[in-house]
Amino acid sequence: MEKTVTIDLGQRSYDVRIAVGLLDAVGQTVASMRNVSRVVVITDDRVEKLYARGVLDSLRAEQLPATLISFASGEINKNLKTYAMLFDKLFAVAPPIDRDSVIVALGGGVVGDVAGFVAATALRGLRWMQCPTTLLADVDASVGGKTAVDHAAGKNLIGAFHQPGAVLIDVETLRTTSEQVMQSGLSECVKHGVIRDAGLLDFIEENLDRILTRDADVMTELIARNVAIKGAVVSADERESAQRAHLNLGHTFAHAIETFLGYDKITHGAGVALGMVAACRLAVKRKLIDTSDARRVEAILEKLGLPTSYRDLDPDEMWEIMQHDKKARGGIVRLVLPVGLGQVDVFSDVTDDSIREAIASLNE
Amino acid sequence: MEKTVTIDLGQRSYDVRIAVGLLDAVGQTVASMRNVSRVVVITDDRVEKLYARGVLDSLRAEQLPATLISFASGEINKNLKTYAMLFDKLFAVAPPIDRDSVIVALGGGVVGDVAGFVAATALRGLRWMQCPTTLLADVDASVGGKTAVDHAAGKNLIGAFHQPGAVLIDVETLRTTSEQVMQSGLSECVKHGVIRDAGLLDFIEENLDRILTRDADVMTELIARNVAIKGAVVSADERESAQRAHLNLGHTFAHAIETFLGYDKITHGAGVALGMVAACRLAVKRKLIDTSDARRVEAILEKLGLPTSYRDLDPDEMWEIMQHDKKARGGIVRLVLPVGLGQVDVFSDVTDDSIREAIASLNE
Repeated sequence: MEKTVTIDLGQRSYDVRIAVGLLDAVGQTVASMRNVSRVVVITDDRVEKLYARGVLDSLRAEQLPATLISFASGEINKNLKTYAMLFDKLFAVAPPIDRDSVIVALGGGVVGDVAGFVAATALRGLRWMQCPTTLLADVDASVGGKTAVDHAAGKNLIGAFHQPGAVLIDVETLRTTSEQVMQSGLSECVKHGVIRDAGLLDFIEENLDRILTRDADVMTELIARNVAIKGAVVSADERESAQRAHLNLGHTFAHAIETFLGYDKITHGAGVALGMVAACRLAVKRKLIDTSDARRVEAILEKLGLPTSYRDLDPDEMWEIMQHDKKARGGIVRLVLPVGLGQVDVFSDVTDDSIREAIASLNE
Repeated sequence: MEKTVTIDLGQRSYDVRIAVGLLDAVGQTVASMRNVSRVVVITDDRVEKLYARGVLDSLRAEQLPATLISFASGEINKNLKTYAMLFDKLFAVAPPIDRDSVIVALGGGVVGDVAGFVAATALRGLRWMQCPTTLLADVDASVGGKTAVDHAAGKNLIGAFHQPGAVLIDVETLRTTSEQVMQSGLSECVKHGVIRDAGLLDFIEENLDRILTRDADVMTELIARNVAIKGAVVSADERESAQRAHLNLGHTFAHAIETFLGYDKITHGAGVALGMVAACRLAVKRKLIDTSDARRVEAILEKLGLPTSYRDLDPDEMWEIMQHDKKARGGIVRLVLPVGLGQVDVFSDVTDDSIREAIASLNE
């Protein structure tokens, strides 16, 4: 079973292919690009051990000169220091890279963000392709062309938009991702359902067991549906403004939770899950959705192993943090709230009190 | 006297204004942009002493919250270390910058390249405007949206395309540029004449004395004509390929000369002048132009104080360097040669011997 989703971005459109074993197709995919002088695979040390050899073999089987460079895995290394180190390695490749060189990003979200930013800015922009290896990267980072590194002042503060030429999602890589990383991806899947496609929530409910055991066919279908949703949003609104903001459902809360607790204390997926719970409860209060809708979302999250409550979140401190969030413009906090399952809108008139109340409700 | 040249890039079109005293108009220009939350002026320590106060006053007169950040001047500081340091300062600005913030690049080519690259990648791209303060930046770096920093492996290897929203060229700033920096700008002016506009060469010949004394009206006219030429090339070919390559006249030689001698031993303008002499002589050999055309270009360069010969250039070593030039694709050296004054073409069939011969001719 193979699925292909085309991300429609005019001249920069590209295909996302999803199937078992696609890492073996990296060589063919790059070979189908025009005029490729050489290929540099960027990965992290964790993924390198698992998949680098196969990818390099697939490239070399197509007579493509291929080099691998890697960095130490982890969000903590998603910074300008790693970025600079990767350029030292990239420009040491012999013979030297030129404008016809292609970057392959092989790994999870961090690798995609960092390698994509290197591709966006090496010689003012090289072609690149993405081979995500985690569910979160599959359904989120691999669509939209966002690349970035973090700064001490915040996440993803330094980066660029740079669309890949192709994305290959090898569903087999899900076998090597941890439970925690898997949950982060599932959290985004639920989010996509809530913002655009109630049918996706049905699909998740109907296939819960096979999702939890990472059944290849169900995961292929799940990823394809999510990539299609994210792709539609991104196509409609390539530069983040009206529509793309919908993808921030739960994220304003999540960033505040992550900042309040510390990024090492809670996963992004758990933060987003909690944020969605808070957003749904706010939406119930405003009579945008029914209590049963909110309960349904919470039940799905729980069954996927995601948290729907967290003790010791301080509503006042979190409110302060939200006001500093970079998506807050001119001090106004804009919140994405469901207005039905499969539909959201952006609200800038949410009162401080109702936000604090929604956060307080997460403390059980 | 004020001149305005519109750089036609579709939705990203912008005006380049050229006149005496335009630094006082920075505030008004930024104020005319939509929804500006705050302004960060990026400059170097040399330019800061000369012009920062006036620019900040002009911004504050428009009630725009403005902050200045600067770095140590010089090409040697055009690197990722400075880039990282500028982000530390940028994200320390209080209240914090957001997507509605605007960067003002105030300074010569290095400032424009570095500040532009910061603008291109801060929060994945902020609006920016350029206030060049050297002739070279006026006629070259301020048009085309190229931003970059250097890497130990070569110049401008890390960067992005990012068009400014406006360019203000204050002709008065030419009074504070050194003779050497002025010559680098004049070298590019001659280049623009050779590649696109024989009339510009006439203008330079007719106004030599007033150019050398930096007469405001003549410089305004000279800058406007050059911006118009570069703007036309860039509009026709925003992403460097066929047309934009014409701007490389003399540059393949220049890069080789600079690399051979060391970047601190010869100015870019002198390198380009020598490169143009070599290119013209090669063109004479190929009967593309007359000997008198080549002599005329050399005479103009000499009158502007630029070199037309240089002892001790090693043709063999320079040929090696040229083969490593990043503009050389697949080992083939592509050379831009005049095919008449005001017209050039790209040649990829120039023999090693004729290139070495042209270089040798520079040794007098």
